[in-house]
Amino acid sequence: MSSASAFDLQAYLRERVRWVDEALERFLPDEGERPQQLHRAMRYSTLSGGKRLRPVLVIAGAEAVGGEASLVMPTACAIELIHTFSLIHDDLPAIDNDTLRRGRPTCHVQFGEATAILAGDALFASAFELIARNAETAPAERVVQVLRLVAEASGTRGMVGGQMVDIESEGKPVDADTLEYIHRHKTAALIRASVLSGAVLAGANQEQLKALSYYGECVGLAFQIADDLLNVLGDPRKMGKAVGTDAARGKATYPALFGVDASRRRAYHLVQEAVQALRDFGEKAEPLRAVAHLVVEREG
Amino acid sequence: MSSASAFDLQAYLRERVRWVDEALERFLPDEGERPQQLHRAMRYSTLSGGKRLRPVLVIAGAEAVGGEASLVMPTACAIELIHTFSLIHDDLPAIDNDTLRRGRPTCHVQFGEATAILAGDALFASAFELIARNAETAPAERVVQVLRLVAEASGTRGMVGGQMVDIESEGKPVDADTLEYIHRHKTAALIRASVLSGAVLAGANQEQLKALSYYGECVGLAFQIADDLLNVLGDPRKMGKAVGTDAARGKATYPALFGVDASRRRAYHLVQEAVQALRDFGEKAEPLRAVAHLVVEREG
Repeated sequence: MSSASAFDLQAYLRERVRWVDEALERFLPDEGERPQQLHRAMRYSTLSGGKRLRPVLVIAGAEAVGGEASLVMPTACAIELIHTFSLIHDDLPAIDNDTLRRGRPTCHVQFGEATAILAGDALFASAFELIARNAETAPAERVVQVLRLVAEASGTRGMVGGQMVDIESEGKPVDADTLEYIHRHKTAALIRASVLSGAVLAGANQEQLKALSYYGECVGLAFQIADDLLNVLGDPRKMGKAVGTDAARGKATYPALFGVDASRRRAYHLVQEAVQALRDFGEKAEPLRAVAHLVVEREG
Repeated sequence: MSSASAFDLQAYLRERVRWVDEALERFLPDEGERPQQLHRAMRYSTLSGGKRLRPVLVIAGAEAVGGEASLVMPTACAIELIHTFSLIHDDLPAIDNDTLRRGRPTCHVQFGEATAILAGDALFASAFELIARNAETAPAERVVQVLRLVAEASGTRGMVGGQMVDIESEGKPVDADTLEYIHRHKTAALIRASVLSGAVLAGANQEQLKALSYYGECVGLAFQIADDLLNVLGDPRKMGKAVGTDAARGKATYPALFGVDASRRRAYHLVQEAVQALRDFGEKAEPLRAVAHLVVEREG
């Protein structure tokens, strides 16, 4: 990794986040088109300056095996829509009852609960439309493989399943196994699917997919631990949302179970593992390596 | 249609509904598997004796062009999961606030609101897993085409969009255009996608798809008009849900706008149009013809 110092992550991210934001702007339904209120809510929650970690990982996953961003852009945006959908539903009064997200009122605060539920549903549907659209630039077999990956990572054996166990565990003593289950499903599954989707679309072989699967899982877990740590130690102004909310809710978190220091050590260890998994990828995987480090070093 | 009298619709439906129920039972996640509560809710709402109209239409759509039920079963079940997901979310307190569905307490009454929201989300995700799985018995290109059809029919340009305008219109005077928009999107879009998905998987040509698209749209609209009529005139014991709720909510319905007689005439006219669209299909389309008639003659 002698070239790591030569790689300019900030410039890389700036460019790709701009591509993703432009593509999302283009893919999302128009506010002038009926039903306007639904489209306003979908755009409000999606186009609100997120980090775009997942779409960047789709792109970087493709690049790591010689693909190009333009080839995978519909799927990159699809996964961001799924992430946004999950945030909207998780913020609902019946679930986390959060009122602030990315520095702005949450979707249901801004548009009402009915619209927020349906905006989440519509974003989820749009995500799968976009995956289908990726067949314009990639073979159908690969698109179907991506469909399976992303659907599994979103549902009961992925994100939604993790969120369910997270809610069930609130206010209860949680063991390490359950915490691991929550993190792997709620967060790591979709992050892993992001890297893999990009790689699949770009024609990765089985060995590459195996390495990227492990990379994605490690980065996903590290991301969630870092998130838990930010909820304890973070600056709400930099994060655009409240801190201390996990403890107040009796949420199962890494620092609550293992303490801040052990959590930090585990996050850094996971990043090392992730980077190690990329040892045979050469320079093309520099973005993935740099993103792995960023995940635990971010401030929001 | 001289063979119409020879076709035994009840026997046909009994068999296919059994196949669909068995496949749903198999495809749905186990209640013993974590997160149990989520899986209980998913199974409770799906395995509750629905009419299975949409999966039957997927099968009948395939059969009309020479395909077989076993070939399209994952997609048939996928569309039933999407239908169930939409019922769960529509029943939520923030939307229609319904407490009875198919003769039993609605999902949020039985399992709580958070679980109901997530069960809907998980069913939606499972649906797309199933569509991906249909690549085991059909070419990937056709699966991608089905994915696009189903995702579009579910989202803002389909079911969810129709539901949004339906909610927005409650208690307001609604013109014929808006009512048509609601019916086409909320109900007809997914019914049309059902017939088309089966036909696409079975290798229908463009001309056949055009005819089946028109069939699906007519049957979908007729179904919604019949639904509106049942809400005015139906027997709650046969329907397993309350009647008179549309009027109480000031919902936009066909009978409210045009009266009961004109609504009935329009529904029958749509069925004729649907059957007419199948004129070149021969005996293989008998099930589709019979289902079209059933849609306006049902009692629940």
